[in-house]
Amino acid sequence: MLASIAHRVPPRSYGPWEQVASTLTEGLVARGHDVTLFATRDSRTAARLHAEATAGYEEDPAVDPKVHEALHIGAVFERADEFDVVSNQFDFLPLVFSRLVPTPMVTTIHGFSSERIVPVYRAYDDVAHYVAISDADRHPALTYDATIHHGIEVERFSLGEGGGGYLLFLGRIHPDKGTTAAIEVARRAGLPLVIAGVVHDEDYFRDAVAPHVDGRAVTYLGAVGPAERDALLGGAVALLHLIDFDEPFGLSVAESMVAGTPVIAFARGSMRELVRPGLGGALVDDVDGAVAAVPVVRVLDRSACRSDAVARFSADRMVDDYVRVFEQVAGGPRR
Amino acid sequence: MLASIAHRVPPRSYGPWEQVASTLTEGLVARGHDVTLFATRDSRTAARLHAEATAGYEEDPAVDPKVHEALHIGAVFERADEFDVVSNQFDFLPLVFSRLVPTPMVTTIHGFSSERIVPVYRAYDDVAHYVAISDADRHPALTYDATIHHGIEVERFSLGEGGGGYLLFLGRIHPDKGTTAAIEVARRAGLPLVIAGVVHDEDYFRDAVAPHVDGRAVTYLGAVGPAERDALLGGAVALLHLIDFDEPFGLSVAESMVAGTPVIAFARGSMRELVRPGLGGALVDDVDGAVAAVPVVRVLDRSACRSDAVARFSADRMVDDYVRVFEQVAGGPRR
Repeated sequence: MLASIAHRVPPRSYGPWEQVASTLTEGLVARGHDVTLFATRDSRTAARLHAEATAGYEEDPAVDPKVHEALHIGAVFERADEFDVVSNQFDFLPLVFSRLVPTPMVTTIHGFSSERIVPVYRAYDDVAHYVAISDADRHPALTYDATIHHGIEVERFSLGEGGGGYLLFLGRIHPDKGTTAAIEVARRAGLPLVIAGVVHDEDYFRDAVAPHVDGRAVTYLGAVGPAERDALLGGAVALLHLIDFDEPFGLSVAESMVAGTPVIAFARGSMRELVRPGLGGALVDDVDGAVAAVPVVRVLDRSACRSDAVARFSADRMVDDYVRVFEQVAGGPRR
Repeated sequence: MLASIAHRVPPRSYGPWEQVASTLTEGLVARGHDVTLFATRDSRTAARLHAEATAGYEEDPAVDPKVHEALHIGAVFERADEFDVVSNQFDFLPLVFSRLVPTPMVTTIHGFSSERIVPVYRAYDDVAHYVAISDADRHPALTYDATIHHGIEVERFSLGEGGGGYLLFLGRIHPDKGTTAAIEVARRAGLPLVIAGVVHDEDYFRDAVAPHVDGRAVTYLGAVGPAERDALLGGAVALLHLIDFDEPFGLSVAESMVAGTPVIAFARGSMRELVRPGLGGALVDDVDGAVAAVPVVRVLDRSACRSDAVARFSADRMVDDYVRVFEQVAGGPRR
């Protein structure tokens, strides 16, 4: 399991790639698979850990990203003959090593940062086994083995009643994520808004978000770890996910629905696949639609929302899906 | 020959790594060696060219550095069995591929951008063949096969007489290179200063250099290509190389001495190896020393300066040195 080394595995707060690598690794180990996790040395896992970097490069300035990513990926391929399959949760760089070893590699594409990175995926399309994280994120120029939606550790989330009476924004503070749209919707819906997440765009936070934060109508909690997310989600009337980009997947959307909290999302990217209107929330096109959706989702059956989400977004389901692909590319069930 | 893809090979103006890769490649081809140059598609060479990037990423914003560096390096190793030896003029990233193929690789370390990149060189010290570009740049933690000073195409530089009556600064405009020290020395020596080179630090240029540029006492010519350097060097009384870092090598210093133009350099980094006081110029410790050196170097024998530099810094000498290392690591003379 080749994880990103931006953060520890699992991440302390932000780190969706590292979270997925962790969930998949622990799920595989629990089923008796022999897994070596390549990640930072401070990672926590029941698998064998191989570490080249002491800590995530986003967390420790002494860790040079280019140097440690090189050592990290080199190490996987130097040990490739020990493995039946490599699960690449990193990015495109491991692809260019893949023709040098016979071990098959399954590459999960966590999204395309820009069209400029597509050429490297295309150049290895013939030997690569690509997994899309949503159908919406499939690139037409590439061949995929499967679409596998992320799964989450559903037992970490209990069924909430929305008793906090607030709307919730949960994610990176960045224009892509629509923090200001959430502020406007909450104001017009007459409900308080709670914002939680790391600031990824300082200027946006300072100029467009912070001026609205008054601790009553709008509260900002900073980054919240996995443990705090359960309570936060459970108390929310709804999650506002008013994205301004074609998001390939939204872990917080899945988490929210597993907690029974409906999601009001802009109908972009993977949202049509994740949110089932009338069951898990509402898909809307603009701020007006989002405001109108608040009373609609408020009366949804939170228990049905949760059941459906657990079935679709459990770690177990994700592990099932990956095992199927791993067995296929390794030429049969685990030896 | 694995070149950097920041610029074309050879570079149009700035690009010392690409210049060395070009000089070595063409020298090897001229001797009948079968060389494949991995470089940008717009490169010019008598060798076979393998290109993954259409142009240098510093020259064309459509070229993504990470994507194309990955494709570029991957391609070399996928074809490694065609080669007796790989000459790595790139950087450290190829090292982490080197245990995956049997072809030996000779890695020229063009300098350490920071102490943070040393761990990757150390991790591959057992299998790598390192070439230092000066004894001064040898890192105590690493094992080297050789020190090979860069060579230049000496026939491109004719013996100049210094008839322009100016002092010359030739290099990147950056505090490391001591542009402002050169301005001060020229002023105190009562000679005009000509500055040529790309601006690598915009703030420094605007705040510390540009205010002095008047087209008389101080002239700035911008970047100059290899062809213009000959005339520029030949007309200079001396080259001022008052560096503020331990420079691992200075191509312009070698070029200047080959043109017969003495160099006044701060005695740091590789300068003690490159400049022979009383023959090729003067080594000084500060601005006072540099001012005092101007009349001293003015009376040096430019023809003797050139002869010594040609013997020490010709492309032929460099190619000889590399062939010796390549034959050693490939287990004997070229098959």
